Amino acid sequence: MRNERNEPVGILGGIGPMATVYFMQRVLDLTDASRDQDHLDMLVWNHASIPDRTAYLLGDSDESPGPVMADDARQLERAGARFIAVPCNTAVAFQDEIASAVDIPVLSIVDETVAAAQAAVPGLTSVGILATDGTLRAETYHRTARAAGLTPVVPDDVVQKDVMSMIYDGVKAGMPVERDRFDAAVAHLRAKGAGAVMLACTELSILKTDLAVDEPDVVDSLDALAARTVTMAGGRLR
Amino acid sequence: MRNERNEPVGILGGIGPMATVYFMQRVLDLTDASRDQDHLDMLVWNHASIPDRTAYLLGDSDESPGPVMADDARQLERAGARFIAVPCNTAVAFQDEIASAVDIPVLSIVDETVAAAQAAVPGLTSVGILATDGTLRAETYHRTARAAGLTPVVPDDVVQKDVMSMIYDGVKAGMPVERDRFDAAVAHLRAKGAGAVMLACTELSILKTDLAVDEPDVVDSLDALAARTVTMAGGRLR
Repeated sequence: MRNERNEPVGILGGIGPMATVYFMQRVLDLTDASRDQDHLDMLVWNHASIPDRTAYLLGDSDESPGPVMADDARQLERAGARFIAVPCNTAVAFQDEIASAVDIPVLSIVDETVAAAQAAVPGLTSVGILATDGTLRAETYHRTARAAGLTPVVPDDVVQKDVMSMIYDGVKAGMPVERDRFDAAVAHLRAKGAGAVMLACTELSILKTDLAVDEPDVVDSLDALAARTVTMAGGRLR
Repeated sequence: MRNERNEPVGILGGIGPMATVYFMQRVLDLTDASRDQDHLDMLVWNHASIPDRTAYLLGDSDESPGPVMADDARQLERAGARFIAVPCNTAVAFQDEIASAVDIPVLSIVDETVAAAQAAVPGLTSVGILATDGTLRAETYHRTARAAGLTPVVPDDVVQKDVMSMIYDGVKAGMPVERDRFDAAVAHLRAKGAGAVMLACTELSILKTDLAVDEPDVVDSLDALAARTVTMAGGRLR
């Protein structure tokens, strides 16, 4: 496949900058390409200095990243982007603000992930969510799952504590995380009735790749967004 | 350090798309950052559909990538880039065409690499070049080395054949390359009098990182460009 000239995919990134680079790598990995020119043209705003979205959402800062991200989206649109992907699970809180700033589509990582879970497990009725405390508290994944007819399942407190530890003391700190801990969290959600488990946090996406986890009922949010980015741009998945 | 808002670094990429993502990762790795907002703002045109530069340079195509890259540079300048880095050793052939299209600086990967070699080995008089046949034939690294007062040293034919094999049958094909082969090529250039060895090919940069090569006289062109990108943007190196 070849992306049409002058109609790049827009990537609104920088939140965080490492997740954006990892997302770009996954778009390349998932594209069926045998030469450079088969890959998608991507226009990427890796905007690291966007005001801290977690600090704002927790009320520790009154500087909203929303208007900056809306501006970035407008800039990508002006530069010719045909649609926009935002590789971040926290930025979902600003999804409407970003989408209303432009006339081109803005993909939703949450919508894509829930759809990918339904595609992965036919007849799915309950879906587990592995994410930060903040994402769980915001309930974005809960709401989208319910709207799709799925019952959301979250970890018990003690398991959620270990999920946070895998994210913060493990991946974010550059420390190895043993496969057993990841598997235990997934098994816990399966035991609670989840027919599929969504990795709704960038660090968990990276951990899954590092651990070479390849289980059909474990659905990675960044991969779901990357796959949709490839197909929406007219590309073929590998 | 914090990049000043609205003055991102411009990355003219896509040649190839994987090298661009790897380069972005190295910029992140080399930046002394303790939080997302400490990283550089980067505006990246990962323009995979740029006409094949190697086919053009070898005379197999008459579609020059030069005008497309000049347009991309103008677009990055219009979007507010304060300077441009082009993470590719083949694109050097179009350096003047790109630089004359814009009023902002365009870093030269060759200049940065030769300067990094001189900084790495005080009193350097001869410098080795590990690169593709095409880069050696173009003599861009030779010329810049000579202009800096250095004698360029290239591998004998049999070793150069193995360098090409490491690049094409190894890294580009996704096959492992043993450390011994890499070390043998470096040792060969040292034996021929090279006081430092420049890795003047993206695949060799990736190989060096994969093999965890950490020798002060082995100078990586992509890392040299990444380091200069960080410092020119006002960042601190890790």
